[in-house]
Amino acid sequence: MNAPAFDASTAGREVVARAEALARHSDSPDHYTRTWLTPAHRAAALQIAGWMGEAGMSVRTDGVGNVIGRYEATAAGATALVTGSHFDSVRNGGKYDGILGILVPLACVSELNRRGERLPVAIEVVAFADEEGARFQTSFLASRAFLGKFDTVLLERRDADGVTFEEAMRAAGLDPAAIAASPRDPETIAAYVEVHIEQGPVLLDEGLPLGVVTGISGGTRHLVRVAGASGHAGTVPMPMRRDALAAAAEMVVAVEARAKAVPGLVGTVGILKVKDGTGNVIPGEVEFTVDIRSGEDAAREAAEREVFAAFEAIAARRGVGVTARKNHAVRATPCSPRIQDLLADSVAAVGAPVRKLPSGAGHDAMVMAEATEVGMLFIRCGAGGVSHNPAETVTAQDVGLAVAAMLAFLRAPGLSASRAPAGSAPGPAFVRRPA
Amino acid sequence: MNAPAFDASTAGREVVARAEALARHSDSPDHYTRTWLTPAHRAAALQIAGWMGEAGMSVRTDGVGNVIGRYEATAAGATALVTGSHFDSVRNGGKYDGILGILVPLACVSELNRRGERLPVAIEVVAFADEEGARFQTSFLASRAFLGKFDTVLLERRDADGVTFEEAMRAAGLDPAAIAASPRDPETIAAYVEVHIEQGPVLLDEGLPLGVVTGISGGTRHLVRVAGASGHAGTVPMPMRRDALAAAAEMVVAVEARAKAVPGLVGTVGILKVKDGTGNVIPGEVEFTVDIRSGEDAAREAAEREVFAAFEAIAARRGVGVTARKNHAVRATPCSPRIQDLLADSVAAVGAPVRKLPSGAGHDAMVMAEATEVGMLFIRCGAGGVSHNPAETVTAQDVGLAVAAMLAFLRAPGLSASRAPAGSAPGPAFVRRPA
Repeated sequence: MNAPAFDASTAGREVVARAEALARHSDSPDHYTRTWLTPAHRAAALQIAGWMGEAGMSVRTDGVGNVIGRYEATAAGATALVTGSHFDSVRNGGKYDGILGILVPLACVSELNRRGERLPVAIEVVAFADEEGARFQTSFLASRAFLGKFDTVLLERRDADGVTFEEAMRAAGLDPAAIAASPRDPETIAAYVEVHIEQGPVLLDEGLPLGVVTGISGGTRHLVRVAGASGHAGTVPMPMRRDALAAAAEMVVAVEARAKAVPGLVGTVGILKVKDGTGNVIPGEVEFTVDIRSGEDAAREAAEREVFAAFEAIAARRGVGVTARKNHAVRATPCSPRIQDLLADSVAAVGAPVRKLPSGAGHDAMVMAEATEVGMLFIRCGAGGVSHNPAETVTAQDVGLAVAAMLAFLRAPGLSASRAPAGSAPGPAFVRRPA
Repeated sequence: MNAPAFDASTAGREVVARAEALARHSDSPDHYTRTWLTPAHRAAALQIAGWMGEAGMSVRTDGVGNVIGRYEATAAGATALVTGSHFDSVRNGGKYDGILGILVPLACVSELNRRGERLPVAIEVVAFADEEGARFQTSFLASRAFLGKFDTVLLERRDADGVTFEEAMRAAGLDPAAIAASPRDPETIAAYVEVHIEQGPVLLDEGLPLGVVTGISGGTRHLVRVAGASGHAGTVPMPMRRDALAAAAEMVVAVEARAKAVPGLVGTVGILKVKDGTGNVIPGEVEFTVDIRSGEDAAREAAEREVFAAFEAIAARRGVGVTARKNHAVRATPCSPRIQDLLADSVAAVGAPVRKLPSGAGHDAMVMAEATEVGMLFIRCGAGGVSHNPAETVTAQDVGLAVAAMLAFLRAPGLSASRAPAGSAPGPAFVRRPA
């Protein structure tokens, strides 16, 4: 073949142009919002399927609308390196969130296909239909369904317009019975790698285009309620007050102080509400959320214990009550050291400094880790690191580097080195490791 | 005459029974709410007028619906000791707030009338029609109108149902033109004394039935806005955050700390709102109110300067913006030392310990102080000191002591001692002092 050399810059520009084109498939004419199985979502799926086909992949969809493109290995039926991300969005979101994890590998496959090159592993690019869960308040719906872990109680859930999950599926031509009928056999998955915009400011701050993710932070969310005594802002002397907001404010500061004390730990009070708040009334009741995350579960759990002990001490000193209810808990997902090393080598191979960092946000890789070893490659996030926001941005140059690095990763001899247990029959070069 | 001796306990029980009866005239069948010129308000006015007449007073109403009962002095046309309070309420309020300031003096006049006793000063009991201002968001409407300080721009203001102030007046049979037509000549007012439930916990905490008010606190209300940077709760490391809520929390603690440092000063953050608060988003913008009050204007102003300097320092250290807008400001109203002394003597005369304390809440006495010297007598507030609340309560025994003390005050030789400037013509024994 006489194909021109791979040009990362051109590839980067093409991926960015495709992300922009895809964002036009939006539930709203005013901003980019794409939720599960809306007409815009179905149109985006169709576009992605077309691009997969153009890249020489065989394309199928599954029961929840995931679009799966497969680029065969040297040998037919080989175990697949699965890579992908989601093509739904939060309301008024950013057009690179999720999408880059589909379009960057697609650009790699396109290049392999252009060269007529096959690898020891098959490559499957999965466009997950729903990760954000904005329409039915779901959590990792698509990747869970991909692994055959769909929960059928969801079928009766209703969206904001009263449409049930099942009705939405049937309106989109999907058959709920088909979800359970096609669970993916984990043995056919070699590993899962996800490319994603960082959604934070670390790479931007350090002037680095790419990052290798060490793990996805675990986290808990608590709802905390502080009960003091309301009173007239003018008539209750300071020493006699049991001000729920002053107590809560001290607790907010305590969350921050504790999180600052441990590198890699983050603690956030995102919601704080004063019940019946009035300018001339001492607050009697306050509720707030505490979100604590870390790549290290033990560090997070220790921080949580200390934060709640601090809450108790503040409450006792002030004569107010404090109760907390856990609403959400996810354990940390470490990325496979072997995949991290291979991604780091690939980043270095394209001339970029290697920066390892945790992912503070959740990703489909957390679910995929239940079935296979996982890794993630972060692309620098512009505009101060904002995400889930129309201001979210990347540069075509960074994206081009990501395409080049992923291509190096997919072609790395280390990736195709046998990982089969000693004495096993010759099989796929890249097999699943137990978690 | 052969009248039985005055029985304070019986008088207290009668006042409490009347307060309870009056609370049945409510805008709502579910709770006690009585706002200006509603049918319940008009019915309460009629009841009060009837009680005034029974006590031997001549009764008139003025342009805004104030009910004024006058018990003549030994000499007809004498200058009047004016005493009273308001008979409107906040929504879902307490049935003693305001009302005791009408019913306690009424019980005194009733006793004087029973004895056939006249004093050197006339006594006017004023039932102010609106102090809370719940219906038209007014401020001291009735006492201002009583002094001829009505602002006619109010006439076009609308209530929550769209009824204008003027329409409400006409529906109640009141003529807006009559307000301005009857300003009260301050020279006819000897002094103003207001009996009121404390609305705070100080007397309750110290086990005292009555208190002599030293002054009514001045205060300011500011709206403070903190502008930081929102971000993903998982992806922005702690050192890179500009969390508007963490900054605001530190400011709330600073308000409290500064207020605690000065006796008699109170500082309250009653409202705090996180804009677009979400559990997994670092707050980018927070607004909160700061209410600071003191009986000493200089102490309050110094505290305000220090609090806002602390806000600036916190904001600068955290890289967030802070702005404040003053929404409300009232200077402190000192009570007349002479009236304080006379009230203190009267409290001592009925066997109660004398406790002087400031009033942190505003009262009609603040407006009346623009025309005459003022004093206030507080009655212990039960139920932890709550007010503006259905739980607000007093004991009949405390109220009886207040009736006895007020009776002693009205009859005190000191009250009728000449205060006329030397060389002036013989006139009313008790004349207005310049403020």
